[in-house]
Amino acid sequence: MKALTYAGPEHIEYSTVDDPTPTATDGAVVKVELCAICGSDLHIYHGHGFTPDTGYTIGHESIGEVVELGSDVNRFHVGDRVLIPGSVGCSTCASCRRGQVLRCENQKMGCYGLGYALQGSQAQAVAVPAADTCLHLIPDGVSDEQALLLTDILPTGWYGARRAGVQPGDTVAIVGLGPVGLCAVMSAVAMGAARVYAIDRIEERRQRAEELGAIALRHEDPVEELMGVTRGRGVDASIEAVGADATITLALKLAAFGGRVSVIGVSQNMEFKFPMTLVQLKALEFHIGLTAVQAELPALIPLVQSGRLHPEKVISHRVGLSEGPDAYRQFADRKDGALKMVLDPAR
Amino acid sequence: MKALTYAGPEHIEYSTVDDPTPTATDGAVVKVELCAICGSDLHIYHGHGFTPDTGYTIGHESIGEVVELGSDVNRFHVGDRVLIPGSVGCSTCASCRRGQVLRCENQKMGCYGLGYALQGSQAQAVAVPAADTCLHLIPDGVSDEQALLLTDILPTGWYGARRAGVQPGDTVAIVGLGPVGLCAVMSAVAMGAARVYAIDRIEERRQRAEELGAIALRHEDPVEELMGVTRGRGVDASIEAVGADATITLALKLAAFGGRVSVIGVSQNMEFKFPMTLVQLKALEFHIGLTAVQAELPALIPLVQSGRLHPEKVISHRVGLSEGPDAYRQFADRKDGALKMVLDPAR
Amino acid sequence: MKALTYAGPEHIEYSTVDDPTPTATDGAVVKVELCAICGSDLHIYHGHGFTPDTGYTIGHESIGEVVELGSDVNRFHVGDRVLIPGSVGCSTCASCRRGQVLRCENQKMGCYGLGYALQGSQAQAVAVPAADTCLHLIPDGVSDEQALLLTDILPTGWYGARRAGVQPGDTVAIVGLGPVGLCAVMSAVAMGAARVYAIDRIEERRQRAEELGAIALRHEDPVEELMGVTRGRGVDASIEAVGADATITLALKLAAFGGRVSVIGVSQNMEFKFPMTLVQLKALEFHIGLTAVQAELPALIPLVQSGRLHPEKVISHRVGLSEGPDAYRQFADRKDGALKMVLDPAR
Amino acid sequence: MKALTYAGPEHIEYSTVDDPTPTATDGAVVKVELCAICGSDLHIYHGHGFTPDTGYTIGHESIGEVVELGSDVNRFHVGDRVLIPGSVGCSTCASCRRGQVLRCENQKMGCYGLGYALQGSQAQAVAVPAADTCLHLIPDGVSDEQALLLTDILPTGWYGARRAGVQPGDTVAIVGLGPVGLCAVMSAVAMGAARVYAIDRIEERRQRAEELGAIALRHEDPVEELMGVTRGRGVDASIEAVGADATITLALKLAAFGGRVSVIGVSQNMEFKFPMTLVQLKALEFHIGLTAVQAELPALIPLVQSGRLHPEKVISHRVGLSEGPDAYRQFADRKDGALKMVLDPAR
Repeated sequence: MKALTYAGPEHIEYSTVDDPTPTATDGAVVKVELCAICGSDLHIYHGHGFTPDTGYTIGHESIGEVVELGSDVNRFHVGDRVLIPGSVGCSTCASCRRGQVLRCENQKMGCYGLGYALQGSQAQAVAVPAADTCLHLIPDGVSDEQALLLTDILPTGWYGARRAGVQPGDTVAIVGLGPVGLCAVMSAVAMGAARVYAIDRIEERRQRAEELGAIALRHEDPVEELMGVTRGRGVDASIEAVGADATITLALKLAAFGGRVSVIGVSQNMEFKFPMTLVQLKALEFHIGLTAVQAELPALIPLVQSGRLHPEKVISHRVGLSEGPDAYRQFADRKDGALKMVLDPAR
Repeated sequence: MKALTYAGPEHIEYSTVDDPTPTATDGAVVKVELCAICGSDLHIYHGHGFTPDTGYTIGHESIGEVVELGSDVNRFHVGDRVLIPGSVGCSTCASCRRGQVLRCENQKMGCYGLGYALQGSQAQAVAVPAADTCLHLIPDGVSDEQALLLTDILPTGWYGARRAGVQPGDTVAIVGLGPVGLCAVMSAVAMGAARVYAIDRIEERRQRAEELGAIALRHEDPVEELMGVTRGRGVDASIEAVGADATITLALKLAAFGGRVSVIGVSQNMEFKFPMTLVQLKALEFHIGLTAVQAELPALIPLVQSGRLHPEKVISHRVGLSEGPDAYRQFADRKDGALKMVLDPAR
Repeated sequence: MKALTYAGPEHIEYSTVDDPTPTATDGAVVKVELCAICGSDLHIYHGHGFTPDTGYTIGHESIGEVVELGSDVNRFHVGDRVLIPGSVGCSTCASCRRGQVLRCENQKMGCYGLGYALQGSQAQAVAVPAADTCLHLIPDGVSDEQALLLTDILPTGWYGARRAGVQPGDTVAIVGLGPVGLCAVMSAVAMGAARVYAIDRIEERRQRAEELGAIALRHEDPVEELMGVTRGRGVDASIEAVGADATITLALKLAAFGGRVSVIGVSQNMEFKFPMTLVQLKALEFHIGLTAVQAELPALIPLVQSGRLHPEKVISHRVGLSEGPDAYRQFADRKDGALKMVLDPAR
Repeated sequence: MKALTYAGPEHIEYSTVDDPTPTATDGAVVKVELCAICGSDLHIYHGHGFTPDTGYTIGHESIGEVVELGSDVNRFHVGDRVLIPGSVGCSTCASCRRGQVLRCENQKMGCYGLGYALQGSQAQAVAVPAADTCLHLIPDGVSDEQALLLTDILPTGWYGARRAGVQPGDTVAIVGLGPVGLCAVMSAVAMGAARVYAIDRIEERRQRAEELGAIALRHEDPVEELMGVTRGRGVDASIEAVGADATITLALKLAAFGGRVSVIGVSQNMEFKFPMTLVQLKALEFHIGLTAVQAELPALIPLVQSGRLHPEKVISHRVGLSEGPDAYRQFADRKDGALKMVLDPAR
């Protein structure tokens, strides 16, 4: 079959690879109908992946049809149309059964497309482990593109807002308006934030945020501008969606006394200089963590079904899987308004 | 000064009464600029008030200007423009200081306009007890009419939704679409409910609810219709805004297993036949209680300021205080689209 | 095999019945090692069960060893020693997978021993449906008797306290000190209640409650006595563990303004006279519902393992299954200090 | 009057200073009956205070009798016996009125004894600002020594456990067993933790922790030991009560996936090397902040009154104020089992 594979820094290849087979009796194979490139795939693209290996298939956002099932799978049938959450667990432990796959008691937590252990889903088919936990039926009233965005970035933006404790009436700041940051904007709005301030250097992204209900900050010094509009108070909840030291520090500075700061950008710095005195004087709550997609779906699905969340609005490009290598370059360079890049494995 | 007084069942008078004076050193007098008729005033109108006395001034929703202050008031000045929450407490106890006036440790909780103890505010001026707790500055960016609706019905609708535990993604039902029910609709929407089903016999009120984001149920049997649209599940949260036995029973029937039911209509039946077996099998949470307006304002004010809540949309009529007696009749008869009736004491 | 069967009002028989077989491919058979009589079994004993049928096996509290498993069971093996939660669900739906069996999306919720649909476990063996959800391994450090009490009454008492929202520092009242009420006492103490007031007519039960950390009320009028010791305030949380109208009304009266009332006694009155005005003036939160045992175990097991909860202290008698008919009579008559009656199927 | 003043690094003097006077019309003067040395006073003692000034009175934990009151104070009378929370706010803003003094909207938050701005209370008398917010009556059933510990360290330990989200059934670690760490131990126990693991290098402090219900870790490598006893899982909640980089890092390492880490030790490092990748993979919640004592008292007072919390158990020495300079040295050197040092201003 065809797949996008990692061939070295700044080098993604449209390759022919082996067809997948179920990894175990609780696994499945899904024929991929749509997949997408995630901001965190760019870490791999730039050569900062978890392994120096090359040749493995990347990607962890996809939907499709179940074509093969292991004998221990109880909840799905061949032919089911499913979304494949980017986070992976086991079939049996109590944590995974309630969707908290990152707390898997059997230590089976993981993600597709980070190396050979679990091949990625930017491909014509993908092997899914522990299908009872790792698949979810595409619900009625959810379009394929919406289902695709439910596999990772909408749950991640939502989880960021949820861990930032966004309450009705709150003032919120979102730092970074890529696809995940925009999902955090729409999540904070849906949770009843009174005001959502949006920060990004790219004008077009700020406009997208405003279309989703945010107030864009345009000043060179966002701390000064935000303190101006909040009368020196800062925000109740601050959500960082980049993962860089400067933006995390910014998110901490924007928070009001007693505020909550949630980082959903992927940070790779083991020595981030955390401003303890500042945070202690402000008595902040600080969250950083990956998302157990499965645990966020129950609240998100009805909001998408009823039209209160439109994650498909972050899609900027739809191309064939064969154009994937170009799509990676374009997304990495933020060219031509590149936001969410959706790929069709059939072309 | 002029005031509306209770003169007996179905009989409100536009009368001349004594000017108010501060009741104690912690009290104030406010010149009323706008006041409104509340659904709960109709209990008095129909002769079901707390006292058989006549001649007292009624009403508990008003805004105006502070014209007199007792020597122990620390938080307000003469000339301040204020909204007067309908709920009353003391100046000093810990509960009242945090806005929980109904838990006043000095047992000073109360309401205006229920008898001679605390004269009402459908008048040209009103005496306010414990001003430090019982007044609130009209915030910037909140119109006078919005401030008026922040004195009682928006906080009551909000509190109903809050106690019903409305969470983002929830399915909600609102039973009764008078002014308070409509405030509950907009509150549930602002809290992130995925779907808000609205129930009332009056077509025009259902239309208002739909304009606020609800889905009106039009079937003769709302339980059947709701179970149809929720696949037999029922709603996560059910809010009753009438106070009658039949509508409370309906709210209980609409709730899903594990659901929450909140009654904000004023019930006067000490022997309501509570369907214990039904509620136990469904493991419901049931709430009924008056609203401590002061405690709800911190979340509501920013939502009104930012335009996410528009309580003024429930206003149907604006008339002079002198036309108050007619306005009562019209509201009681639900004539001419009567919803919220706002009165101007200057005419 | 031998079992206790319902033979008519006040008539339990020690009978020979058919050996159980798995009900479906997701089911199991467990050889029972210990079982117990529950207060709610007395409803059946007195002829107020869900069916007029006779001859079925009763009981829903038991532990034992897995002796047979259906082919779709993934989480258990023959030979596993298990506790059998009294509440039942399905193997596959999202609610059951997270332990919320009473919200089973496939409507498979139920209980053992209420009729022929699901035979009881006061027997030498029992058929268990949906074993992946309906069994739980007996954890290390939990004795057999403790495991037995984890199948129903400790989770029920705990759930009652949890739904009553017991917070550290709270004042709590427990109405009814049978085995479940005593479990509520120990739960409220473990949750950090500052004071737990315990109410029952039987002196010996009050003494048991005091040994568990409660303060027994001994006055004829518990409302008067409680208001005396709380300075007229009442309790933050009130838990009813009887199910009778008078005791539920008492629990409502004991609650402070803004308090929470939780009923865990099984009520069978569809027309309970609910004092709406009282509850509305006090703005109470009212809960009544059966317990999804599976959902309560994660918090309870470590508390039992570490010795902070000793549910076995409510056991009053240990007899052979063959003495079951007498044990029922004794428990129904509250004779000889009868509290929890444990039965051994081997004798 | 007599007072302890800061005279330079490692140099506290027993001095004669001016009698205090109320700072404003909302202030008070309290004759001090007992005061205590706090671990955070040692920062000043070692020359790391907020000011290079010398000669100011230090200390922020004290109780006594109101001897003078400003005209705007409404809640207290001369002669009242009061505890003086270490945290300070204003009389009027909404945050301070509900006890959240650190969020004072008038920016009046502060602490006694950090310089000349607000003189300390290790003295025979102290001036209190905004008395309505900054004083609290000593409740019935609370001893003077217990009241003294309610002014800072018990609320701080409690707040640390509360922000670490300690839930009934949790496994908890406390890093650092000085007076505040021991208060965190007793708080976590009272909140229903199943197991509280206690870590400190000093054997005597570990013994104190065990007397309060903890399990002391004695191994050289506490991470290894803790992972052993928790089967590699780590703790649900980890509380750091030292403020040093190494102990904060240790607290992060002890936490389980999805765990909460709360720092109540005072950290003075603006460049703490925060292990982002570790924390992100574990999806931790991280809290650090000073304590608004006023906000914690409502839960703590009933727990002290009912004997569920015994903060006085952390007191190791009781001496005259005149012996204060020696007491500082002894506490700084952790000599003779020095834990909480209580000072009597009368001698």
